[in-house]
Amino acid sequence: MNFSAVAHMPDSRYCFCIHPGRFLFRLQTALEDGLRVVLHYQDKYIPVHFLDTRASVEMKLVARDHVHAYYEAELDIDVVCLRYYFELIDEAGERIYYSNCRFLSEPPGDIDRMYDLPQNLREVQRFEVPRWALNKVVYQIFPSRFASSKPVSDQQWYQSPIKSNVDLKGDLKGITEHLDYIRDLGVDIVYLTPIFRSNSSHKYDTIDYYTIDPGFGTTQDLIDLVEKAHAMGMKVMLDAVFNHTSPEFFAFSDLENNWENSQYRDWYYCKEKPKRPKSFGVKPNYKCFSYFGGMPKLNLENEETAQYVIDVALHWLRTARIDGWRLDVGDEVSHSFWRKFRAAVKKEFPDALIVGEVWHYAADFLQGDTWDTVMNYPFLNAVMDFVAEGKITASDFLKELGFLRGNLHTACQPLLWNLIGSHDTARALHRCGGDKQKLRVLAAMQLLLPGMPFVYYGDEVGLSGGPDPDCRRGMLWDPERKDHSLFEYYQKLIHLRKNYSCLTEGESVRQLADDATGTVMIDRGEVVLVFHGSDCEVSLPQYDGWKDLISDTVFTGTICGHRAMVLTK
Amino acid sequence: MNFSAVAHMPDSRYCFCIHPGRFLFRLQTALEDGLRVVLHYQDKYIPVHFLDTRASVEMKLVARDHVHAYYEAELDIDVVCLRYYFELIDEAGERIYYSNCRFLSEPPGDIDRMYDLPQNLREVQRFEVPRWALNKVVYQIFPSRFASSKPVSDQQWYQSPIKSNVDLKGDLKGITEHLDYIRDLGVDIVYLTPIFRSNSSHKYDTIDYYTIDPGFGTTQDLIDLVEKAHAMGMKVMLDAVFNHTSPEFFAFSDLENNWENSQYRDWYYCKEKPKRPKSFGVKPNYKCFSYFGGMPKLNLENEETAQYVIDVALHWLRTARIDGWRLDVGDEVSHSFWRKFRAAVKKEFPDALIVGEVWHYAADFLQGDTWDTVMNYPFLNAVMDFVAEGKITASDFLKELGFLRGNLHTACQPLLWNLIGSHDTARALHRCGGDKQKLRVLAAMQLLLPGMPFVYYGDEVGLSGGPDPDCRRGMLWDPERKDHSLFEYYQKLIHLRKNYSCLTEGESVRQLADDATGTVMIDRGEVVLVFHGSDCEVSLPQYDGWKDLISDTVFTGTICGHRAMVLTK
Repeated sequence: MNFSAVAHMPDSRYCFCIHPGRFLFRLQTALEDGLRVVLHYQDKYIPVHFLDTRASVEMKLVARDHVHAYYEAELDIDVVCLRYYFELIDEAGERIYYSNCRFLSEPPGDIDRMYDLPQNLREVQRFEVPRWALNKVVYQIFPSRFASSKPVSDQQWYQSPIKSNVDLKGDLKGITEHLDYIRDLGVDIVYLTPIFRSNSSHKYDTIDYYTIDPGFGTTQDLIDLVEKAHAMGMKVMLDAVFNHTSPEFFAFSDLENNWENSQYRDWYYCKEKPKRPKSFGVKPNYKCFSYFGGMPKLNLENEETAQYVIDVALHWLRTARIDGWRLDVGDEVSHSFWRKFRAAVKKEFPDALIVGEVWHYAADFLQGDTWDTVMNYPFLNAVMDFVAEGKITASDFLKELGFLRGNLHTACQPLLWNLIGSHDTARALHRCGGDKQKLRVLAAMQLLLPGMPFVYYGDEVGLSGGPDPDCRRGMLWDPERKDHSLFEYYQKLIHLRKNYSCLTEGESVRQLADDATGTVMIDRGEVVLVFHGSDCEVSLPQYDGWKDLISDTVFTGTICGHRAMVLTK
Repeated sequence: MNFSAVAHMPDSRYCFCIHPGRFLFRLQTALEDGLRVVLHYQDKYIPVHFLDTRASVEMKLVARDHVHAYYEAELDIDVVCLRYYFELIDEAGERIYYSNCRFLSEPPGDIDRMYDLPQNLREVQRFEVPRWALNKVVYQIFPSRFASSKPVSDQQWYQSPIKSNVDLKGDLKGITEHLDYIRDLGVDIVYLTPIFRSNSSHKYDTIDYYTIDPGFGTTQDLIDLVEKAHAMGMKVMLDAVFNHTSPEFFAFSDLENNWENSQYRDWYYCKEKPKRPKSFGVKPNYKCFSYFGGMPKLNLENEETAQYVIDVALHWLRTARIDGWRLDVGDEVSHSFWRKFRAAVKKEFPDALIVGEVWHYAADFLQGDTWDTVMNYPFLNAVMDFVAEGKITASDFLKELGFLRGNLHTACQPLLWNLIGSHDTARALHRCGGDKQKLRVLAAMQLLLPGMPFVYYGDEVGLSGGPDPDCRRGMLWDPERKDHSLFEYYQKLIHLRKNYSCLTEGESVRQLADDATGTVMIDRGEVVLVFHGSDCEVSLPQYDGWKDLISDTVFTGTICGHRAMVLTK
């Protein structure tokens, strides 16, 4: 048995409250050990001789990654404190006890040498998420390039390559006019990148958080958009760019003009009067996003500044009745600020969804006290490495998913924004070298697996483009330019997602990978998902004669080339 | 190489800010692998082609426990975000790269596949502790049994076995009168278990947080005690019993009397009018400490209640100028409450020391946002198992210390309250079966190792006693009953601690364990500590002729029986 791989720390990664009275316990072991694990527990404060509260439960293997296997058990308890330890049994029947991070050859006799769970402590800190959002489909819109209510020439709209600051005249009314299209696709949540006043096309450098950018429209336009979306059964989310502002934001302007007499000295990180660098490559004398003088970093540790942006968040929740915020550059702002932010937002809007931008595994932001979930860039890396670029095997792909399953709090997992591209990356189709069969497999992965599929506008009709700014081209509205068949494929998959609850609820029954042929099979009970991520031919005689719900055909037992299937008997 | 043992998570256990601009990185590997580890890093936002910021540093092996080795490196950085990964080199020279929790055969080319450190995020969350307290000596007093300013007969004072609620008439004036004694021992901080109004001898069931228990004296007596201690160069800490109260506390009384009309409905956890159980073994209909109806649990999630006890904490810091609080049953109260508590206390009293009671490894409370440190019960378990009870080997003992060294934030480590007993455990001498040679080794471990030695009143003069209540006997003042030689031994060790900064500053140069003879040797540079934890004879010819600073004799190369030495050439 590989003792060095075994881990259960008494913190919220390994033990947490599902709901009052119910707790999840997690244990990590080495991948290769193939252990059985039993969780033993008893009441801390009731002596065994008075009342024997000892009990045990077998833990379930729930995930595997490259090097670890993860076991879980859930318990219903009503105690002040629980004491517990683990019994690990290897394939030869050898037993070892793991208690308080130590290995024992006998069960720990002394309850003070067991793990300790103060029930109240963890119940107070339980991770509560908006249940309406579980496994729902998000559609990301880059407003300046999605749709315009004003006339724009095709030549202007479809220019390619596109430059960063080109104004295609996209606006909120344009989005509202196309909500039918979005709903028709099957989307549940429309998420808009920033829409407040700014001089850039992306608007990630805000000049005024209280004004809709005049090019995009008015507050009333936003209200109309949200009202219409709500009436159609969709939610709307906005982009909270609170890490930094434009230098033209009033507080920074005041600093530039009145340095010593400015009342905003603590709103930014300036040790001296800020001077905007005249050329790229010169570090500004104030903190910024990156080292870009055009995005001075707000000091959200200053209570006044923190309250200002929290008020902004509340203002748009109240005024436009939006349904949540995506937090730009979320991981460059402190947990303590996000705790305040969450507390203020959830107090008034318990159902608001809070999604942080972070490109890495981010368990520290996913413990229930700051965000509800994150943009799932590890998912993007995994699907691209496997399908688009063929850099990893089918089993490695499953292990990447297993890493998240085994290491993240279970509450946030049905909310992970599973993306295959965004305004910050090259388009999925571009990364597939234009191969739409590959794109279809990627789309199937995001649309059929648990989490929140995050569709970047246009992917569904074949919009392509390299890295920023090329990934921000005008949406394909021209019927001649649209891939209608691809759109129908997306529709079909979302339809399947919504009609087969087994796809998103519960655990996978079994997961198999065939590395030789690049095939992943995920048994979800009522259906089996097949993702074939390579060009080679693969025979799956065990499914010969099953029905593929995507193509509505009977599967003949052989796949040639990239393909996704949802098989049922 | 044992991949499953390797761990570096992007959270505050593995990466934290030492002070602005300086960061510590930690990596865990398997104990047996004997690796070299190199940390590679670069600026996230400066492209290498523009300016090559890539650099690397060899990590240092700082600790080993039963199954892991821990490596650390500290970096001075001035970036927005740092990207980094680890290079692991085994004894055969084989290299593997560990980045973003994955193993790679080549260095990661894509910086998005490296670990990410947003500098500002971690700087905001740095763990700041009161520097005055580092490695200082604490003396725990149980006030009702320590010293009385009133005449008490020897027969009454030294009764044994002692019953739980016997009143020995100890009081604050009695403590003040004996501060000379305490200072003479070499103590830096006097910590009193609770002193507020209560009907028990231990006073862990508070009736009034604003009144000194009349049996103990008055507010002025406390002020006098603190003033005199301060004048003598000592600090004073009190016990914060905020998890629960007495049922006679005004808010609970009001609930009992006016249930439906009480304004304190949310101060406790009561779903119906509370009824105190008449006999032991009946669960109360309200939450309690343990299931003890005499200690109803406060609901500190209620903001009004939280503010009430925070005001109590501030009141005594202001009124009596005490220097910190020890938090009773700290781990049964939420992190969110303790965050509020810390923020309020440190805002007004940044130098106040906050020490939580928790009997387990408690990294979740030791990240800089709640407590400064904890009572170090894992230390107590380790020294008892090795020295008092001979249940573990010398190397296991070192591994227990290594576990804490490798897994706790470095900021709190010089503050850990290293105890060998308390009012909640059997006395150290009792656990040693009365063997004072063993006790001397235990005392040497707590008094000579880094951390805060925590001396339970009377240990230093040979006071013994089994588990509570027997461990709370009257202090030995009668010269006939005191072990003067033991007192001088304690004095000597504390004197050495204060005069040899190498004992507490910096890392151990080398640690060796000889399991056959039960000997631990810790090289601290200027001196070598030797703890011989068994009865057998051991030869240490390498130290023949060195001077033992404890006994002020020349070491002849052989130890018979339990003994501690501080050797110098």
